[in-house]
Amino acid sequence: MKIVVIGGQGTIGSAVANHFKKKHEVITASRNNGDVLVNMENSESIKNMFEQIGKVDAIVNCAGATKWGPFAELSEEDFYVGLRGKLMGQVNIVRIGRHYLNEGGSITLTTGVLADDPVYGATNSAMANNAIHGFVLAVSQEHRNEFRLNVVSPELVEDSAERLGNAFPGHTPVSMQKVAKGYERSVEGLRTGEIIRVYE
Amino acid sequence: MKIVVIGGQGTIGSAVANHFKKKHEVITASRNNGDVLVNMENSESIKNMFEQIGKVDAIVNCAGATKWGPFAELSEEDFYVGLRGKLMGQVNIVRIGRHYLNEGGSITLTTGVLADDPVYGATNSAMANNAIHGFVLAVSQEHRNEFRLNVVSPELVEDSAERLGNAFPGHTPVSMQKVAKGYERSVEGLRTGEIIRVYE
Ligand SMILES: NC(=O)c1ccc[n+]([C@@H]2O[C@H](COP(=O)([O-])OP(=O)(O)OC[C@H]3O[C@@H](n4cnc5c(N)ncnc54)[C@H](OP(=O)(O)O)[C@@H]3O)[C@@H](O)[C@H]2O)c1
Ligand SMILES: NC(=O)c1ccc[n+]([C@@H]2O[C@H](COP(=O)([O-])OP(=O)(O)OC[C@H]3O[C@@H](n4cnc5c(N)ncnc54)[C@H](OP(=O)(O)O)[C@@H]3O)[C@@H](O)[C@H]2O)c1
Repeated sequence: MKIVVIGGQGTIGSAVANHFKKKHEVITASRNNGDVLVNMENSESIKNMFEQIGKVDAIVNCAGATKWGPFAELSEEDFYVGLRGKLMGQVNIVRIGRHYLNEGGSITLTTGVLADDPVYGATNSAMANNAIHGFVLAVSQEHRNEFRLNVVSPELVEDSAERLGNAFPGHTPVSMQKVAKGYERSVEGLRTGEIIRVYE
Repeated sequence: MKIVVIGGQGTIGSAVANHFKKKHEVITASRNNGDVLVNMENSESIKNMFEQIGKVDAIVNCAGATKWGPFAELSEEDFYVGLRGKLMGQVNIVRIGRHYLNEGGSITLTTGVLADDPVYGATNSAMANNAIHGFVLAVSQEHRNEFRLNVVSPELVEDSAERLGNAFPGHTPVSMQKVAKGYERSVEGLRTGEIIRVYE
């Protein structure tokens, strides 16, 4: 398969890209790095990326900004960091990317455990993540015969445990291998409309 | 209790307002109607409303726009109808309204069954509704000792069945009385952080 991994140089994205590289042709993409440049918050930029790389068999997104901070300290504008970033960025990847999929292709998005267990400061992430879960449910049903659409929701991952662990009391980080397997299940499996929770 | 019902002249809002009027002082609010005018998409307008009515014991919102339409026909801007309306409108009601609550006060938002069962054309609703579910979970935890925050998620309601029923195959509309009871449970009960699904 030809697979594009957006955010493919990031913590999760690089583990996912390396995993797929064992069996597939992988193209990595992000704003500053990778085989091709893209800003997922800009629809024109997404279109340009696909015009450069052509049709693919799988689109995997491992990027998406949210605003961290307690609700009481978030301004109205702060909420739009996650709405324009992690939410509409991923919506735009599906809106545009579906036209660049080969037959039988799939799109795999990323949310995270903060959808189900928002720790202190995670309001904006909880909103964006749950919105994406609803989006995947709705869109996968309308396009069941055209492409598959899933989302991987990872726990705090091992490679982020040192940096982020204090913010996630009681959470046991999952291995990068298990997270990569979640994406593999979406890309190489048969599912559509699934929220693939990789929580343990 | 002194209760403000935003959208209190609408299909659900009028049933809710009339239910609470039996036992409480109710103020209705919307853009064009009611005891006080408010546009929930405008933070200044929300602030003005509360400055007019003063502190309340409960804020109930039964309003919130979304864009109806199949995913394939939605433009990028279309998605923002629900994000600015049903999502950020309600976020702003909580952001601002919490400063106008008496001790022991509560805020009750509205989503709907399209969160869990998005019918054809309901992508934008599914996103906004699920985002609010995540929002309520996150914010209720951070503010557990200050105010209660719940959301009522109604099935298609009886008073909308004639107009909307065709879009909801297999759904059995719920009575206005049961829906009003969902809001009562939030306002007069003890819960916080609950998604009160009124689906049957
Ligand atoms: N780390 C965890 O433990 C964890 C757990 C659960 C869920 N998640 C979620 O997984 C996703 C990735 O997390 P991560 O920790 O791997 O993040 P990360 O290490 O910061 O990597 C993010 C990657 O995305 C790219 N990127 C950021 N904004 C972009 C944009 N607008 N357009 C295109 N590319 C963009 C970045 O590269 P450029 O800067 O070059 O664009 C980078 O390659 C996030 O949504 C996060 O919430 C993470
Ligand atoms: N009807 C159903 O079967 C059903 C089922 C589940 C969930 N829901 C949800 O419940 C909510 C209400 O539905 P409904 O059927 O009762 O709607 P509706 O009959 O159209 O009533 C909406 C009310 O909200 C007010 N409103 C709209 N936009 C506003 C704004 N920006 N600021 C302040 N007020 C505003 C309207 O008055 P003005 O025009 O004067 O502002 C009206 O009073 C919606 O979120 C809907 O998705 C409905």
